[in-house]
Amino acid sequence: MIFTQAIQRNSLLYKDNIATCIGGNKKTWRELEQRVAKLANALISSGIKPGDRVAILALNSDRYLEYYYAVAWAGAVMVPLNIRWSVKENLFAVNDSGTKALFIDDQFLSIGKSLQQLSENVEISIYMGDKPTPASMLNYEELINKHAAIEPFNSDENDLIGIFYTGGTTGFPKGVMLSHKNIWTSSFSILQELKLSNRETPVMLCAGPMFHLAAAAMCWSSVIGSVQVSILPMFKAEEVLECIQRDEVTDMLLVPTMISMLLAEGGFKDYDLSSLDQIIYGASPMPEGTLLEAMELMPKVKFCQAYGQTEMSPICAILPAKYHTLTGENAGKIRSAGRQSFINQIAIKDEKGNSLGINEVGEICAKGPNIMMGYWNNPEQTQAAIKNGWLHSGDAGYMDDDGFIFLVDRVKDMIVSGGENVFSAEVESAISKFPGVHEVAVIGIPSEQWGEAVHAIVRTKPNTRCDEIEIIQFCREYIAGYKVPRSIEFREEPFPITGAAKIQKNVLRKSYWKNQERNIN
Amino acid sequence: MIFTQAIQRNSLLYKDNIATCIGGNKKTWRELEQRVAKLANALISSGIKPGDRVAILALNSDRYLEYYYAVAWAGAVMVPLNIRWSVKENLFAVNDSGTKALFIDDQFLSIGKSLQQLSENVEISIYMGDKPTPASMLNYEELINKHAAIEPFNSDENDLIGIFYTGGTTGFPKGVMLSHKNIWTSSFSILQELKLSNRETPVMLCAGPMFHLAAAAMCWSSVIGSVQVSILPMFKAEEVLECIQRDEVTDMLLVPTMISMLLAEGGFKDYDLSSLDQIIYGASPMPEGTLLEAMELMPKVKFCQAYGQTEMSPICAILPAKYHTLTGENAGKIRSAGRQSFINQIAIKDEKGNSLGINEVGEICAKGPNIMMGYWNNPEQTQAAIKNGWLHSGDAGYMDDDGFIFLVDRVKDMIVSGGENVFSAEVESAISKFPGVHEVAVIGIPSEQWGEAVHAIVRTKPNTRCDEIEIIQFCREYIAGYKVPRSIEFREEPFPITGAAKIQKNVLRKSYWKNQERNIN
Repeated sequence: MIFTQAIQRNSLLYKDNIATCIGGNKKTWRELEQRVAKLANALISSGIKPGDRVAILALNSDRYLEYYYAVAWAGAVMVPLNIRWSVKENLFAVNDSGTKALFIDDQFLSIGKSLQQLSENVEISIYMGDKPTPASMLNYEELINKHAAIEPFNSDENDLIGIFYTGGTTGFPKGVMLSHKNIWTSSFSILQELKLSNRETPVMLCAGPMFHLAAAAMCWSSVIGSVQVSILPMFKAEEVLECIQRDEVTDMLLVPTMISMLLAEGGFKDYDLSSLDQIIYGASPMPEGTLLEAMELMPKVKFCQAYGQTEMSPICAILPAKYHTLTGENAGKIRSAGRQSFINQIAIKDEKGNSLGINEVGEICAKGPNIMMGYWNNPEQTQAAIKNGWLHSGDAGYMDDDGFIFLVDRVKDMIVSGGENVFSAEVESAISKFPGVHEVAVIGIPSEQWGEAVHAIVRTKPNTRCDEIEIIQFCREYIAGYKVPRSIEFREEPFPITGAAKIQKNVLRKSYWKNQERNIN
Repeated sequence: MIFTQAIQRNSLLYKDNIATCIGGNKKTWRELEQRVAKLANALISSGIKPGDRVAILALNSDRYLEYYYAVAWAGAVMVPLNIRWSVKENLFAVNDSGTKALFIDDQFLSIGKSLQQLSENVEISIYMGDKPTPASMLNYEELINKHAAIEPFNSDENDLIGIFYTGGTTGFPKGVMLSHKNIWTSSFSILQELKLSNRETPVMLCAGPMFHLAAAAMCWSSVIGSVQVSILPMFKAEEVLECIQRDEVTDMLLVPTMISMLLAEGGFKDYDLSSLDQIIYGASPMPEGTLLEAMELMPKVKFCQAYGQTEMSPICAILPAKYHTLTGENAGKIRSAGRQSFINQIAIKDEKGNSLGINEVGEICAKGPNIMMGYWNNPEQTQAAIKNGWLHSGDAGYMDDDGFIFLVDRVKDMIVSGGENVFSAEVESAISKFPGVHEVAVIGIPSEQWGEAVHAIVRTKPNTRCDEIEIIQFCREYIAGYKVPRSIEFREEPFPITGAAKIQKNVLRKSYWKNQERNIN
């Protein structure tokens, strides 16, 4: 299956239905197809050839969604840049991928130096905003207006469709190569798992950053299911609530920190959220306290967890709504990341690649048509990640007798204290239940006695004070003694986060380790 | 994706749920997986190697479903034989495919000569019944009991998984080669289109013959969706009604003649059919009169049409329930065969392969991952059928502005009368509305004046008489003069039908044409 086929199908079958909506501005499937087919022609006329890389650095918009499809329509390769990365990191991605053209919007145009630096490294710059077009740049709408619609390039389903850079924060960004087949099979499976298109008039809210596979895949699944995509330029709790009310949103994907922010939004109860049917969450571990609070505040909303990573296009497991319960036969599964999707096999493997048994902790590995082609220009990392067809996720976890997988940590965030493995996520989950705790990150810090000691960094709710001793005593009720933090630090400033809103534990660890090397990875 | 993965997934995720049910005898997914994995081992131990062909000649049963998966589990190739074919035709299939092993049940064992002839042509014969095992045959249950469960063969998704013989009635049986990918993508798409697994406790009734792709694909979709399959040995109207009531069937696939038989069943209203949610129909054109009668009798049941053929694994278009209406904005679509599925592109092409415009009649062509690999040992027919990736269906039809395709006839059943194309299906649809008409077949017969003349063969309802002149006058209200039958013949004996319950028009035509050749194909 080819990525662009869904657009052609919707234009034929659902022509006048709404495809995209941003700030009340709507476009139909027929309009979307025409704009994509014209923009593809403009790219080709500007010198873009099949296989050429075309990057984008922009906030979310309907034009961002058109970009995905126009690049593929032209037979080229999309390279969505991380909006939270430094110029230096994005320059690495642009140069590493050999990007030829760059789409950029007002937000990033205003960072004069960054624009200049990025533009110098590409042949074609396309301005996506509505202000006067800067010199030496092409204008997005003009390109569409000046070109005729063309037929899509005749891609093969195994052709590269995009390079998605991940892991920039570790200093080693890797370009995940995905094919038409990777993205199509994954998005179609997600449509079936999440039952998006079963509602009468489904509307997907895209509030997460569209450069990231989590948000992108939700857009692509929605397009396959001809589900309207409502788009916010970026996540703002109040705007999310406004948009749900205005566009009658039925489904949305949020990462755990976004759910925290939504719950913290003062005006939460002033909005009519009755259209909202499902919140899909994922992309980083969900603290149980936050999830329970969200479920209590929105009792009619189904919560569904999606687990995976960019390398999996991006999902390999789903935890459906019915397992979000604390009672009955399904109790306990809420702590799971779910079970293998329709298209994936999941295995827990040891360091030698042997499959482990029920409840044994090892590395979570996945196999299926959604597993990436490899890392761009990086055969060593590709070989380290994919062995015998199994993608090694870097996540440590186990599988129970019913096939549910439970994450215990990132392999490299696991703390080895006194010879015992301590999983930071488990400790965080315990601390998050303590009244007054807003956010928590647990890391291993150097300890002469234990090798590593468990250390927690806590942010409290506004105008709330927590006591270190009380939290430690509280933890003893939930977790074994060796897992209880040896020390707790309180801080007011936000945690450093990645573009995908994950807490950057390597940054938090830095000041403790300085010149010392951690033993794990 | 590999065909057998769904069985492994269900065994892990839904272990104690019911997989199959026949005559009240139930097996769980875990049992099914174990039996399949043991039977595969038995096949391998008996000398079956990856790629070897393994045929079956049997009525429907849970063992038939196990056969599909065990053959694939062993890496071998299934060859389901047509239960309505003559021994000679099935011998052709066995020899043409180079079949090494044959599964056979009591029904076909009793045809002594056929068994002997078939058995002589294969190395291994496996008896599927529960009576004493004939000499020189292996016993199905013994094979399972004597062998340990093994892991499935590591197939590639592009490997051949089955050869399905079609067109035997024309004297030129062709073996349709399907891959794991063909069957998996098609079955998964069907699951999504038909929303089988969305119900609380879905149960699929398999009443059509399991050698045929229509019934087989419904079984495979059900397995992917972990939907219970209830199986009848063969279609009998009364048993269908009993089974719906007993097993609380929610979905079933029937071909049009089966729906006619169901409606004609005297005890129809004595059964509790309240569980029944959806009837999927297809495999041959549905006379509008029959459909409307069925919709009236079962007002709460959703009717959904699936259109395709074995070469499409087997579906390329779906007409969802909401278009089964005579009023409102969707009126008129009920006469359509539906719109392209999620995984297919459909085009109407002329004889030169050019795409035709809206409402122009040509050959219906389809493209997608479900299109067969080709015909076994038959590169000429493969090239004639698949041109530039487009499968030519042999069906004549057109597409309307909304993407709905309308079948007008088989290309070879079209009647050319006085230089005008007459589509037999259209004439049949008109006649089927005449009160008292049970079944009708329209064919072209030789005419000195018109080249071909439109001729109708009618079977009336029990104890009903129809008048030739009245039917002809009735037709004038619905169809143009040149399409109205010149002659009508009444007959009592059933129409000759294919294994897929399609009327064999070539047989009906035979006595009229004798030594004359028809110009069309």
